[in-house]
Amino acid sequence: MNRQKYSGIIPPVVTPLSGRDALDLPGLERLIEHILDGGVHGLFILGTTGEGPGLSYRLRKELIERTCRQVSRRVPVLVGITDTAFQESLNVARWSAGAGADSLVVAPPYYLPESQPELQEYLDHLVPSLPLPLFLYNMPALTKVVMEPETVRRAMDEPRIIGLKDSSCSMIHLHRILALLPRRPDWPVLVGPEEMLADAVLAGAHGGVNGGANIFPKLYVKLYEAAKSADMARVRELHALVMRVSETLYRIGKHSSAIIKGIKGALAVSGICDDFMAEPFQRFREPERGRVRQILDELNPLLKSL
Amino acid sequence: MNRQKYSGIIPPVVTPLSGRDALDLPGLERLIEHILDGGVHGLFILGTTGEGPGLSYRLRKELIERTCRQVSRRVPVLVGITDTAFQESLNVARWSAGAGADSLVVAPPYYLPESQPELQEYLDHLVPSLPLPLFLYNMPALTKVVMEPETVRRAMDEPRIIGLKDSSCSMIHLHRILALLPRRPDWPVLVGPEEMLADAVLAGAHGGVNGGANIFPKLYVKLYEAAKSADMARVRELHALVMRVSETLYRIGKHSSAIIKGIKGALAVSGICDDFMAEPFQRFREPERGRVRQILDELNPLLKSL
Amino acid sequence: MNRQKYSGIIPPVVTPLSGRDALDLPGLERLIEHILDGGVHGLFILGTTGEGPGLSYRLRKELIERTCRQVSRRVPVLVGITDTAFQESLNVARWSAGAGADSLVVAPPYYLPESQPELQEYLDHLVPSLPLPLFLYNMPALTKVVMEPETVRRAMDEPRIIGLKDSSCSMIHLHRILALLPRRPDWPVLVGPEEMLADAVLAGAHGGVNGGANIFPKLYVKLYEAAKSADMARVRELHALVMRVSETLYRIGKHSSAIIKGIKGALAVSGICDDFMAEPFQRFREPERGRVRQILDELNPLLKSL
Amino acid sequence: MNRQKYSGIIPPVVTPLSGRDALDLPGLERLIEHILDGGVHGLFILGTTGEGPGLSYRLRKELIERTCRQVSRRVPVLVGITDTAFQESLNVARWSAGAGADSLVVAPPYYLPESQPELQEYLDHLVPSLPLPLFLYNMPALTKVVMEPETVRRAMDEPRIIGLKDSSCSMIHLHRILALLPRRPDWPVLVGPEEMLADAVLAGAHGGVNGGANIFPKLYVKLYEAAKSADMARVRELHALVMRVSETLYRIGKHSSAIIKGIKGALAVSGICDDFMAEPFQRFREPERGRVRQILDELNPLLKSL
Repeated sequence: MNRQKYSGIIPPVVTPLSGRDALDLPGLERLIEHILDGGVHGLFILGTTGEGPGLSYRLRKELIERTCRQVSRRVPVLVGITDTAFQESLNVARWSAGAGADSLVVAPPYYLPESQPELQEYLDHLVPSLPLPLFLYNMPALTKVVMEPETVRRAMDEPRIIGLKDSSCSMIHLHRILALLPRRPDWPVLVGPEEMLADAVLAGAHGGVNGGANIFPKLYVKLYEAAKSADMARVRELHALVMRVSETLYRIGKHSSAIIKGIKGALAVSGICDDFMAEPFQRFREPERGRVRQILDELNPLLKSL
Repeated sequence: MNRQKYSGIIPPVVTPLSGRDALDLPGLERLIEHILDGGVHGLFILGTTGEGPGLSYRLRKELIERTCRQVSRRVPVLVGITDTAFQESLNVARWSAGAGADSLVVAPPYYLPESQPELQEYLDHLVPSLPLPLFLYNMPALTKVVMEPETVRRAMDEPRIIGLKDSSCSMIHLHRILALLPRRPDWPVLVGPEEMLADAVLAGAHGGVNGGANIFPKLYVKLYEAAKSADMARVRELHALVMRVSETLYRIGKHSSAIIKGIKGALAVSGICDDFMAEPFQRFREPERGRVRQILDELNPLLKSL
Repeated sequence: MNRQKYSGIIPPVVTPLSGRDALDLPGLERLIEHILDGGVHGLFILGTTGEGPGLSYRLRKELIERTCRQVSRRVPVLVGITDTAFQESLNVARWSAGAGADSLVVAPPYYLPESQPELQEYLDHLVPSLPLPLFLYNMPALTKVVMEPETVRRAMDEPRIIGLKDSSCSMIHLHRILALLPRRPDWPVLVGPEEMLADAVLAGAHGGVNGGANIFPKLYVKLYEAAKSADMARVRELHALVMRVSETLYRIGKHSSAIIKGIKGALAVSGICDDFMAEPFQRFREPERGRVRQILDELNPLLKSL
Repeated sequence: MNRQKYSGIIPPVVTPLSGRDALDLPGLERLIEHILDGGVHGLFILGTTGEGPGLSYRLRKELIERTCRQVSRRVPVLVGITDTAFQESLNVARWSAGAGADSLVVAPPYYLPESQPELQEYLDHLVPSLPLPLFLYNMPALTKVVMEPETVRRAMDEPRIIGLKDSSCSMIHLHRILALLPRRPDWPVLVGPEEMLADAVLAGAHGGVNGGANIFPKLYVKLYEAAKSADMARVRELHALVMRVSETLYRIGKHSSAIIKGIKGALAVSGICDDFMAEPFQRFREPERGRVRQILDELNPLLKSL
């Protein structure tokens, strides 16, 4: 495994839908090209932002195949296999390998929460059954389980576990993980929340899996690069823009679905893809739609000159 | 809909497994007969205790068909269709109708938590697509979403929503729901935690969906009957036994999986079915297995005379 | 200690204030007489409903003395000594003994949460320093600490700990505590949330410490009596009224202070005492005040005939 | 107000105790000199690390007076006035002004949690009554209340509120606060958790209120300086030492009191002051004491060369 391969910005791609259980196919193509044009270093499909758990298995399979075909190995494709049912994770993993994806991503099964020993044993059982290498995905707000440093440390000893996406939203937790890196320096640690991208990379993380990169991929790539080279003036300038996206576009709705609705809404307003949402969520209607338009009108000029 | 139909004890049946993705078929038959012998009023499969979210869809389909065949309409069969993916809920619902189940049970999709308006709209979309009537299932500890009284009140106006299983573990919440019953007096409200069965029935609930009824169905049926007829001396005597089950068998392990492991362990020790668990959980090994045996040795004589 | 002494309804008395750090003295007298007229079995001052932690020590001392003088041993007076500072708890305890109070009530110190062993050791240190016997007060939502059954079991072996007020809002927790009573049958267990009063007494608890008894003491006394004698028809009738108080008067405001504001507002509208609140809270203004009036207009006729 | 005044490292000083309600006077002197020798920019007494809420008012007064006398205006002294009782906060504030302290620090009253409007009104009432300028202290894990950006933005318009200590442990929250700074650029924002000191200062915060600076003041001062001048190599080196302190000394105990016990234990082992703890907590005994010694033996050589 090559560390460079999984450094940088690997957006959690939204899933363009044209209706219930139907992909927006032209939207998916446009979205992938739009993101790749921004210079990102990989694509992660079927994550939280991709509404992975909300999609039928049939659609997940189609999305994997079409994404891999469209990307055509220009960047690595990572596929989320998180599931409450072991067998279904294996199915998604097999489809991913068959379609030419590069690696898999798994968060803890998220119905009954596991203890750390249970989570460790789960990984011990899962990894040997997988046809591709695996990223861990720490997402305690949604899985109700933290991947504790001890569990991550243990995973580092397993060659087929090749990195971690940390969406704990905790810099302290991230530092505890980064403190393990001397053990396996090539092991990429990527941060989920984009508001922490600069902090994380300055602290030694290898990049970000940031939802906003669906809309403004260049912004996140440039911020990653600025942080990697510790160009602090540039970091502050670009980070201020990331905060502005977060404080406006992600705060239109009040609920946990607000961020995905904001991202999909912005993509729809920008003519990239449909913003149909998988159940149990619905796209923004007016006046929220209008608010998205207004925010984009304010943001676009600021981002054009990047 | 007939209220009597869904009153009483409707155990959340465990799923006997002989290995990963394999039903323990003779165990399933024995288990169903064991529970029915106890005089229960229905069976609920693919719930939390049934490890529903942890089973492959293939196995869920097989379980539905075999359970319905074995029960053969002696009591109503309720099937859990809770899922993060709308389409997969519909599939399970269709299999259930095809197999002759009586009704469906749904908790909120449990990855990204919904707001109440989102949950209401979800139910508005789900119910017309279902081939069978629907029970709501309030399980906030695992779904991260409370079904608020306002959402339940709204559901009572929908004729195809025919009742509620409340596993909030909150007597206050349950009272708030029961206070809505004058609106639709025939609407069964069943309580999940067996430690609250007596309280709930005394307060006007219609019965319980209690895990311990997998092992000791008669105990829960008799407690239900005593509470229904307000025979307080009998209620106290039987409730004390229920508390004893809870304080011993459910507290062997420390984690959220402890209750299911305890129930399956007791069934295995009793020769009824295998205690193989769906991933990410593992059955009790020694010394926990021995502790189960010891607890049963103490409980069985107390329960024989029921 | 006499079990009878602490059975029944022991209202958590609100603290009538006429301004910042000033008791409403005529209001306090009227309030005490109003509550005693309802036939209650004791008074608990300086609890959560009494805004204990929000009052200056000077005012707490004055309140203790004036309350004891006014009550004049007609019923037992219990005084809350919960504090984050050990020495201040001892001071309040000494004032209570000096003023003729009957017993003390303590919840865990509520800034940094304690582990159970820390809580147990704290009680070991506190009890010998107290001049009066002590009730435990389990209030996890505000103290961040549950008094686990093991801690309560241990406390039962200490003769100077004479009972428990459980405001866990969990019937399961309460049943686990009640299951310990064979150890010391005279040990009173009182329930905090009034929505659970009937359930608790039916289950073997000895009474309630219910905020609504500030306004409608007779309602809670009668419900207690009905539950104690298992008069189920009467229990349901009176419990429905308690739920009506809770669903209307306690839900005017949205925040944690809503219940106290509702109780004090109802007392002010009824001409009993001022509804000035200790900082950081403020009494209801219009339109909430008007809503209190309207609710009382609806409730009073229903409660007159008790 | 001079921004420089409150920039840098302002340790939350532990309170040396020689017994229940007794200051360790020589220990206090030694501790203050030890910390000042490290080049810190201020001292904060009666905070969380200082066990403020656990101390009697008498002792708080003595601590304020002795600390101010010992410091003798070499650096600013900040005094925590957080309290559940408004009047007691005012008392502590008055003692502070009388003793020559520079400013006050307040977290939300922490028994019943406030809504944001309640918190805002509380500050509106508190600030005009205070004889000294005020820092806000955001500590949601212990107060159950987040100071939302909107509340902080409003506070920035009040000239007598002169800064914020953020112990939210959330980099996202901190960024949201820092994004308000253009409004009042001189307004110091200090970070509580030392694991986030480097991140915070790199992101534009003005310093840290870090418990470890009781033991190793120079380490935190140097890390602050390195981060302020964006000397990334030095930041990484020193941050690694801070993480090592955190991962060893703060993880001996398992409970919320572990950090303070670790800091006091290290100070006692180093001969600086007694590690007696205010109730309800107890100092480390063996074998934890021995573990502290061992950790210091490992850390001291690494820190000598700073």
